[in-house]
Amino acid sequence: MATLCRPAVQVPPHVITMADTLALARSRHAEHPRLPLVLRLIENTGVRTRHLVQPLEVTLRHPGFEARNTVYESEAKAQVPQVVARALEAAELAAEDIDLIVYVSCTGFMMPSLTAWLINTQGFRSTTRQLPIAQLGCAGGGAAINRAHDFCTAHPDANVLIVACEFCSLCYQPTDVGVGSLLSNGLFGDGVAAAVVRGSGGAGIRLERNGSYLIPDTEAWISYDVRSTGFHFVLDKRVPSTMGPLAPALGDLAALHGWDVRRLDFYIVHAGGPRILLDLGEYLQVPQHAFRFSRATLTEYGNTASVVVLDALRRLFEEGGPGDGAAGLLAGFGPGITAEMALGRWQDGTVGSDRDSRQEGALSRS
Amino acid sequence: MATLCRPAVQVPPHVITMADTLALARSRHAEHPRLPLVLRLIENTGVRTRHLVQPLEVTLRHPGFEARNTVYESEAKAQVPQVVARALEAAELAAEDIDLIVYVSCTGFMMPSLTAWLINTQGFRSTTRQLPIAQLGCAGGGAAINRAHDFCTAHPDANVLIVACEFCSLCYQPTDVGVGSLLSNGLFGDGVAAAVVRGSGGAGIRLERNGSYLIPDTEAWISYDVRSTGFHFVLDKRVPSTMGPLAPALGDLAALHGWDVRRLDFYIVHAGGPRILLDLGEYLQVPQHAFRFSRATLTEYGNTASVVVLDALRRLFEEGGPGDGAAGLLAGFGPGITAEMALGRWQDGTVGSDRDSRQEGALSRS
Repeated sequence: MATLCRPAVQVPPHVITMADTLALARSRHAEHPRLPLVLRLIENTGVRTRHLVQPLEVTLRHPGFEARNTVYESEAKAQVPQVVARALEAAELAAEDIDLIVYVSCTGFMMPSLTAWLINTQGFRSTTRQLPIAQLGCAGGGAAINRAHDFCTAHPDANVLIVACEFCSLCYQPTDVGVGSLLSNGLFGDGVAAAVVRGSGGAGIRLERNGSYLIPDTEAWISYDVRSTGFHFVLDKRVPSTMGPLAPALGDLAALHGWDVRRLDFYIVHAGGPRILLDLGEYLQVPQHAFRFSRATLTEYGNTASVVVLDALRRLFEEGGPGDGAAGLLAGFGPGITAEMALGRWQDGTVGSDRDSRQEGALSRS
Repeated sequence: MATLCRPAVQVPPHVITMADTLALARSRHAEHPRLPLVLRLIENTGVRTRHLVQPLEVTLRHPGFEARNTVYESEAKAQVPQVVARALEAAELAAEDIDLIVYVSCTGFMMPSLTAWLINTQGFRSTTRQLPIAQLGCAGGGAAINRAHDFCTAHPDANVLIVACEFCSLCYQPTDVGVGSLLSNGLFGDGVAAAVVRGSGGAGIRLERNGSYLIPDTEAWISYDVRSTGFHFVLDKRVPSTMGPLAPALGDLAALHGWDVRRLDFYIVHAGGPRILLDLGEYLQVPQHAFRFSRATLTEYGNTASVVVLDALRRLFEEGGPGDGAAGLLAGFGPGITAEMALGRWQDGTVGSDRDSRQEGALSRS
């Protein structure tokens, strides 16, 4: 049974506060006809601090797509190894025990993916499979968990490393001044995360079922315009209302599993913005306290795209966990509009660990 | 048992011949100090014709990354539905029977991926999972087959649609005049392909084992420089020699399965260039006739990146197949340098098809 172990999360050192963000919006867009709306929207996010890979004054300059992608690569190489090492330690595994690396990131583009560099430099076997996913955006964290779950179901002796690396500040586009863009400038933050899904043994979330849902005909609601200046994030004003169609999809998945989505013990959901959590509470008839992990990551780090679900999950671990056997939901929401959902049960301690008894010739050695 | 069914392949209408390519190299690079070498390398590819999404004179202009990506999107939407419909028909399935779409493409970038558009417009269920992969390049076809195989192993009632969409001509960079770039200009072609992996039933390749291998410290050998002008393909002169380290990896995977890689009944490998096939024949002690499907796709279409393995496989089907129970190898090679390898047996006819007897409540309805 696949178990999602404790994630490791790291944010870069340059902090921008809500006050900084508001002051910046006021000074840079003083003549903007909808400035009051923009300021109100930013305040409503509740994002108190965000962490950026570069100092604010550097972030605000656009040195070109190529230079930004160079920063993406060097920062990814500087920061990802640390969360990878901590995630492996939390799962009581070594790099050589990993059979697949799922790497999700939508804020920079490399070919080969960082997976090749990780294998070459961090002690992974040359036979480690690579699954880089760039196009699922904020749903990428959920997708990584779900594809890791599938892989471990297919190969019960296997272990999967998930890495999420998002430097959203490298997609800041000074020339985009629509309301959605200005709101995004106050919402997104940078961070990296890693977690291991063990095919057997380990403590954390025992993954039981996963599913995906695409809200019909919403492709244009969250998207990238791909230009010479890089990726331009396009956010439609209808996006905050997406819990209307998505909440039933969460309920349907739970029902297939014989669970009532309104009565779960924990909820780890993508905190794209504050309205997602408020609406989800209403649609699922669940108190806001249930979303405290998602709320905390939004407040302290902003929306860190595919990193969000892993950081919310880390906070559940840090609280001590919901108790053995507790049932819960994980969900990432992103472009499509797509929900990547998982159901699982909390598993305390290291039950059934067989790290030392794994058979020679098993998949992990193949 | 997962079965890879007959692929459907389509190439666009604008043909460029070897004579056109050589004349073009002579006229555009008349002063190039290494022109004789470039011409010899292009002649050695053996690529007789390639098919482009735009007329040659349009292909040669660079209208900017944004405009090219717009062409990518419109051409993908124009061409992919046709191969998807034919692949579904070949697998005796309907769109609603598909549980996962794996979309591989490294020659354009969309977020959301084309998977969302396919689901919205081609009759797939809203619960169809999406797995877009952009960063495995020419290894993407093999990776798609392998991840589909894993998914069907985890969910034996599931079916996976693989789509490969490559318009390499949209990555032509007029300012890149290194020998590797000029050779690439004479090597790569455009095409789209689709194939279904059925979790049960179906005829084709019964997938038995898969594996991946990264040649250590070769990240820079095949890569993209990401610039304001788009993706710049970088090809190191050491690439043609990669069968030296990769042939043993193919042998190791076969040995794990109890097979002798030198004695298989069919070989469907990525035809990145002519030397790959010549060297592989030598290292595996296999006659060149064994690579006739890979050779034919290279000769008629050029290197179509992730499409190559699916087109070579199509040609195996068109020849009538190697006979029930025949054992063979499929392998894609791409950036990393990564090999994505699969072992399987040919299965004639529709054995054990249970299309009409699938249980309600199975994964495909979840």
